[in-house]
Amino acid sequence: MNGRNFRSLLEAKWDEKKFLCVGLDSDINRIPEAIRKEDTRSTIVAFNRAIIDATKDLVCAYKPNVAFYEARGEEGFAALRETIAYIIDVAPDIPVILDSKRGDIASTNDQYAISAFEHLRADAVTVNPYLGGEPLQPFFERGDKGVIVLCHTSNPGAGEVQELSTGGEPLYKKIASLAATQWNKNGNCCVMVGATYPEELGEVRALVGDMPILIAGIGAQKGDLKKVLQHGLDGKKRGLIVNATRSIIFAGNGENFAKSAREAAETLHDAITKAL
Amino acid sequence: MNGRNFRSLLEAKWDEKKFLCVGLDSDINRIPEAIRKEDTRSTIVAFNRAIIDATKDLVCAYKPNVAFYEARGEEGFAALRETIAYIIDVAPDIPVILDSKRGDIASTNDQYAISAFEHLRADAVTVNPYLGGEPLQPFFERGDKGVIVLCHTSNPGAGEVQELSTGGEPLYKKIASLAATQWNKNGNCCVMVGATYPEELGEVRALVGDMPILIAGIGAQKGDLKKVLQHGLDGKKRGLIVNATRSIIFAGNGENFAKSAREAAETLHDAITKAL
Repeated sequence: MNGRNFRSLLEAKWDEKKFLCVGLDSDINRIPEAIRKEDTRSTIVAFNRAIIDATKDLVCAYKPNVAFYEARGEEGFAALRETIAYIIDVAPDIPVILDSKRGDIASTNDQYAISAFEHLRADAVTVNPYLGGEPLQPFFERGDKGVIVLCHTSNPGAGEVQELSTGGEPLYKKIASLAATQWNKNGNCCVMVGATYPEELGEVRALVGDMPILIAGIGAQKGDLKKVLQHGLDGKKRGLIVNATRSIIFAGNGENFAKSAREAAETLHDAITKAL
Repeated sequence: MNGRNFRSLLEAKWDEKKFLCVGLDSDINRIPEAIRKEDTRSTIVAFNRAIIDATKDLVCAYKPNVAFYEARGEEGFAALRETIAYIIDVAPDIPVILDSKRGDIASTNDQYAISAFEHLRADAVTVNPYLGGEPLQPFFERGDKGVIVLCHTSNPGAGEVQELSTGGEPLYKKIASLAATQWNKNGNCCVMVGATYPEELGEVRALVGDMPILIAGIGAQKGDLKKVLQHGLDGKKRGLIVNATRSIIFAGNGENFAKSAREAAETLHDAITKAL
């Protein structure tokens, strides 16, 4: 774990013109028959290893979403830990974003930080801003780790709360401003915006400068890649972590599922680099 | 699991004039030496069993916060599952609130619902409203389960986001209105308010009618019980789940820790019933 720094790892991948992040939301019910093992834990880990082996030269990050592991109980939680350990082992230059969208009072967030950074060994974590910046300190104070604050999420009903007008500007812009001006004392704050809201992404970019923005919703959620790059890139034509999940990891479901995943990742990687 | 219904279980406890909820945030570092076992999982379960045995005739609910279990990895997660199973076994009339403050897009919340309700067998879950009501449907559609939406949290910095003015009213009041008018189609929506904000609690009560309100922050966080009851009770002098955690479960740290926990719980229970 020593010496890993989320922002440095990410910048090095951006130097290589890699912006794609593969979401490892490894729903046990969608894992192909060909890779199934005798138990849930081994099945999930074997599937993730195959996806990682097939895509690791193309990506700037991996992003497992905790929900898909929690749903399988201790076995799933163990599979998540082993998956991250595998990435650190075979691709130590690729940062791991734990997509957990956590958020509680400070003394509880202390425990979530232990879970994410010590137990699971993630390099970054997604967090929810509803409780404000103060209780997020246990995350922010880990300067080597990325803290990715939800800003405008990708779901169809995101606007119900996030677009409420607060003093003349929508809530998600207020959150972006807080992230950029109040919550980034350690230089490790990032934000998350859904690909399905490209114009809102542009507004967020204008507020956060060169802060990394995690883009969710490319692929299965049908976010528009060109618009995302047009509105989301920073002044140096970087700054984005473009995540796709189901459209890559479940691109095929036969024996060649890993090859299909690679092809889908390659197509998206190429589309990003061509559009730059 | 068949036949358990969160609201019915809760109402039955209110009929018995029980409003106290004990938070099972069983931080391994604070568990007394006297109850420690050879491994983390057994230690946490043994401690929780002792607390449950000592308090189960006094409470309307138990509320483990997932963070304190996640921080211990698979062992912690197993201890959480075993703790809930123990409550269902020895006190099947007491509902279990999983304090997880989850919130993601709908297809991911499907997985969190599986984790909370199928794997862990909780009767209710706390959720974060930042993504809006639409992605919370996987929770809301489980009519037998309670879905407790964060409204105004107990932490000192809660106001930074939750008190932002949205169309003339603070965000937490907007969330309370949405919970009461839009998100309660199945009659299983509840809200959470910090004891440290009693006046805001009164405003929320005025908006949500007889909806159950989970009160966090009594005890270690120094919320004022009298003010909470004055502002938070509904028209029938019920409707509250008054949670205390550290002030009860860590009331003592010697061999008689369970007796100390019971005394602390009894004192709070008595204070509530006297004030009614």
